[in-house]
Amino acid sequence: MAKIDFPEEVKLLIAHLKRLPGVGPKSAERIAVWLIGKDGDFSNDLAKAMMLSAEMIQACEVCGFFESSGIGCRLCADTQRDAAVICVVEQPTDVLPLERTGAFKGGYHCLGGRIAPLDDITPEDLRIASLVERIADGCVSEVILGVGSDVEGEATANYLSDLLAGKFPDLEITRLAQGLPAGGGLDNADELTLYRALDGRRRL
Amino acid sequence: MAKIDFPEEVKLLIAHLKRLPGVGPKSAERIAVWLIGKDGDFSNDLAKAMMLSAEMIQACEVCGFFESSGIGCRLCADTQRDAAVICVVEQPTDVLPLERTGAFKGGYHCLGGRIAPLDDITPEDLRIASLVERIADGCVSEVILGVGSDVEGEATANYLSDLLAGKFPDLEITRLAQGLPAGGGLDNADELTLYRALDGRRRL
Repeated sequence: MAKIDFPEEVKLLIAHLKRLPGVGPKSAERIAVWLIGKDGDFSNDLAKAMMLSAEMIQACEVCGFFESSGIGCRLCADTQRDAAVICVVEQPTDVLPLERTGAFKGGYHCLGGRIAPLDDITPEDLRIASLVERIADGCVSEVILGVGSDVEGEATANYLSDLLAGKFPDLEITRLAQGLPAGGGLDNADELTLYRALDGRRRL
Repeated sequence: MAKIDFPEEVKLLIAHLKRLPGVGPKSAERIAVWLIGKDGDFSNDLAKAMMLSAEMIQACEVCGFFESSGIGCRLCADTQRDAAVICVVEQPTDVLPLERTGAFKGGYHCLGGRIAPLDDITPEDLRIASLVERIADGCVSEVILGVGSDVEGEATANYLSDLLAGKFPDLEITRLAQGLPAGGGLDNADELTLYRALDGRRRL
């Protein structure tokens, strides 16, 4: 009895899908089955969308946001933004949620990740040199550290804060407030969140 | 101040990725960022693997397993398999785990899903007609219902069992045993699992 295995094409597809972030071996198989079950149009459309992005999109050299070949970075091109304030975020995808608040009119700087020694991501892997360059160029008065509030986010914020404070003594360095999320009761908040909410309490 | 959004190419990519099973809006963004962050090679390789599968792979008309154009279905081509027993599974990906047990030498029949009215999947959407045809063709003496043990799996098993018993009075219809999973203590088992384990207890 011959050993049964997926056809080579399917194995190749699963091997590639497995490498996507958040996609494990089981999900990769499920996605492969789903893709093959669809008629070929969807696979081809997705394949084309991927190749188009791979060809046309890169990180803006200045701020790290998505930049489309020929069009350039829309963030850097926008002269109405307040160039004196830069919000430092981990990924380009963090920009849109902040934009949706409507509360921020400054520029952004996407690091491309956060310091995570366990994943072998060191400060050298992040877009920190270009951040220093932007600040050294002149008119930046405040840097908001808009990184996450988990361990790696904290480590990244501390690293950047030390680095920037050392290089630019006059620069104001702030961090997004931490505390109770909107709509959350005290009974749902973990200890650390409550601690930080207490620590950062504001006078009314 | 212009409204900031992702470039069109990125929006298109995210829109496509979001449709994959188990990939929500957040995962789609994460995968898109990751894909764009890699150099273009990976995107192109994955795109090629998808197009290759879309072009070369289809479901075998007889058993529903993956069939590679030109090579045909390896399951149906294997003459050493016991044609008298068919194990009915939901997806082609369910075949490999069963094969790995080494305990089954018969044929398979992949339904392509399970009956799930909430997802609009009715018996007509499944490969049931070809199953009936295979059994009607003759030499099948046992059908093992190898579908999952969740609600939809149960519904599918019940539907098939009624249908096949009505059409083929001499056919033996069995279902995979349900009970404690290997290595699980009683304290980890839920009520229904324990109920089924009791119900299906075997004399030693």
